[in-house]
Amino acid sequence: MNQITEARAGNITQEMACVTRIEDIDQIVLRDHIARGEVTIFRSTKNATPKRIVAVGKGLSTKINANIGTSRDLNDLAFEIEKLRIAEHYGADTVMDLSTGGDVRENRKKIIDLSVIPVGTVPVYDVMFEMSSAGKKITDVSDDDFLRAIEDHIEDGVDFITVHCGVTEEVLRIVQASERLMGVVSRGGSFICNWMQQNRRENPLYRRFDDIVALAKKYDVVLSLGDGLRPGALHDASDEAQFKELMILGELQQRALQHDVQVIIEGPGHVPLDQIEMNMKLQKKTCHNAPFYVLGPLVTDIAPGYDHITAAIGGALAAWSGADYLCYVTPAEHLKLPDLKDVKEGVIATKIAAHAADIAKYGVKYRRRDDEFSKSRMQRDWESQIKHGLDPEKAKAYRDAARVKENDTCSMCGEFCSAKLNEQFLKK
Amino acid sequence: MNQITEARAGNITQEMACVTRIEDIDQIVLRDHIARGEVTIFRSTKNATPKRIVAVGKGLSTKINANIGTSRDLNDLAFEIEKLRIAEHYGADTVMDLSTGGDVRENRKKIIDLSVIPVGTVPVYDVMFEMSSAGKKITDVSDDDFLRAIEDHIEDGVDFITVHCGVTEEVLRIVQASERLMGVVSRGGSFICNWMQQNRRENPLYRRFDDIVALAKKYDVVLSLGDGLRPGALHDASDEAQFKELMILGELQQRALQHDVQVIIEGPGHVPLDQIEMNMKLQKKTCHNAPFYVLGPLVTDIAPGYDHITAAIGGALAAWSGADYLCYVTPAEHLKLPDLKDVKEGVIATKIAAHAADIAKYGVKYRRRDDEFSKSRMQRDWESQIKHGLDPEKAKAYRDAARVKENDTCSMCGEFCSAKLNEQFLKK
Repeated sequence: MNQITEARAGNITQEMACVTRIEDIDQIVLRDHIARGEVTIFRSTKNATPKRIVAVGKGLSTKINANIGTSRDLNDLAFEIEKLRIAEHYGADTVMDLSTGGDVRENRKKIIDLSVIPVGTVPVYDVMFEMSSAGKKITDVSDDDFLRAIEDHIEDGVDFITVHCGVTEEVLRIVQASERLMGVVSRGGSFICNWMQQNRRENPLYRRFDDIVALAKKYDVVLSLGDGLRPGALHDASDEAQFKELMILGELQQRALQHDVQVIIEGPGHVPLDQIEMNMKLQKKTCHNAPFYVLGPLVTDIAPGYDHITAAIGGALAAWSGADYLCYVTPAEHLKLPDLKDVKEGVIATKIAAHAADIAKYGVKYRRRDDEFSKSRMQRDWESQIKHGLDPEKAKAYRDAARVKENDTCSMCGEFCSAKLNEQFLKK
Repeated sequence: MNQITEARAGNITQEMACVTRIEDIDQIVLRDHIARGEVTIFRSTKNATPKRIVAVGKGLSTKINANIGTSRDLNDLAFEIEKLRIAEHYGADTVMDLSTGGDVRENRKKIIDLSVIPVGTVPVYDVMFEMSSAGKKITDVSDDDFLRAIEDHIEDGVDFITVHCGVTEEVLRIVQASERLMGVVSRGGSFICNWMQQNRRENPLYRRFDDIVALAKKYDVVLSLGDGLRPGALHDASDEAQFKELMILGELQQRALQHDVQVIIEGPGHVPLDQIEMNMKLQKKTCHNAPFYVLGPLVTDIAPGYDHITAAIGGALAAWSGADYLCYVTPAEHLKLPDLKDVKEGVIATKIAAHAADIAKYGVKYRRRDDEFSKSRMQRDWESQIKHGLDPEKAKAYRDAARVKENDTCSMCGEFCSAKLNEQFLKK
């Protein structure tokens, strides 16, 4: 049975009970959020592999997602599995397999099988990949090709899928008439724009939305309504195309909920700091408090190599202002597929953003770890600081490199350590 | 003649004219800000070495500072000069020499001589260092030792000095009675607390403030009123001790302005996201719109090795909410003195925060670079992207590692590059 169906019947599922424990919230409140589509649980009933139960949305801690997957230029499944392990280790709550190289279906099945966290995918990538592999033209791609890809992914046991249902012909005309610098930066979104343009027909994912809902319903797969029109440059943020698509997503979310199908909404993108809060509040209003999943937002365009930082800034502010779920951005963004180090840095930067936002949203409940950490810092208990930080290995390497002369200080202040000086005038 | 004196007489100094050009603002507006102490120009008239003219405050771009300097455990001037060069290269606007190891005065003179950007220092460190070197007790340290250190620094040609004048006996009693986890984390602040406690006397930097003002006035050295009570843990943020000190700093700022001495105010520290805006607005109100110089704020305590990121998140929000000047935090913060790589990462992370905030504060004026950058991204002009990013070497290394099969895409999307696909449906 599906989570929404159970919630609406007043029942507490095993998954809800589990979320209640993990998140330390009231189960009736949680159940009601699920019934209204404000909280979503990622749990395909198709997939037999036991996975961590992860929920996103109102009243819950901010979750983070790591993208992995092959591309034509870099196709090595073992390497992607290593990325999966790193993402899990450093605290990713979910992973998306975005493979577009090699045997994509085999990759997907392996990743679903091996992952201990929920797995999401973007079925339209398979449509693109198969078209390219078979040497077909985009005019040869039919509605059924899209639907078949979605069904394949769902049958393989994914917990959530991104579907770019809001990229309509009307939205395409708005983009075409706009002054956007980056046009459509979503891969799926731009493929659909191209499909609509060449086939002179409406987006199949929009026209056939009810069929997609029926497919998702079968195993309670979550629909992540993709933001094909997310801005890819600060200049393009908060424009008509972006918000028109968002309104369509809000309508589709209601249609899915009528069929007890869980939905999350995807969001920007590249957004200046001063537009982030407005974007989050607009999404919550327009999409009836559906969980909001954002990529970034990146707060400047000019930092290739450091987009994990530009995204951490925007992500922290976004999550504090209402986003529920942050997709990581790695230092490799805009330049290449991430390697293992990039995955680690991307996960940790996003974790920092999510945690900082949770403290701002929920106060002391999420600050306890910081308080304990600060106590060890005051006591100059280096072992405890290293152990309880986000990255014990890195902290240890820095500590070891300090070559301190006194074990209870660090090389920054040495004998002038303020924590040590405090013992002279603070009695505890 | 001093900048404030000139501004109040209605004159435009060479330095003001220079700032007007660099910042593209009206010179009368700038002059009036300086007259009211809302903008500060770093330019010791003692120092003969020509340096870049840097101003901080109302209506100006957000500036960033890099800390360098030896410690007892790591004392190599040549290494610190290398750090200076890296800081300058990646865009630090000022540098502070915090040396507490080796021949600190010789280090300072060399750094002042070699730096092309303004130099700040913390004279109280010399007092600590000399006390320690001479094996003196804190009860042997006199008022005159503090004043002499300040005079030495000013005579050496520093452009600004941090003086912890607001750490009074009253504030110390508040901290002692408080539930702070980290007590006093400022090195200078904790030294002064210890001095007051052991000598049972009021802070000499508070008692002798008028003498300090007279010394600063001689060469128009800027007084950076230190926040000895800045919170060193999220738990301690926005407490009575912090805000009591801030009120004292606001009073002292007015006294300095009466003597035409320029002042900036230092600020926190470790602050949860949801308290940052309030902190910035409170400072602006309490300190009569004096320029605000913040260290961080760090938005979580638990990320040793990544505090450049925790500080970039807080710094971006702080600068957008009113801070004018960000002190960098490096990945080595809380663990050791930064090495060359740490300095680079610290400067770039802080630059990202400052730039993101300037776009939010001032709009398109500071977004032009981003717009040009995004145009090259859309054209897949990799050379231009590499050249115009914040770190061309890192971007190039990532690009080179991508080993792409087609030169106009990257290994993330390959043939499915959205920018490339846009050419199919967007006519430009």
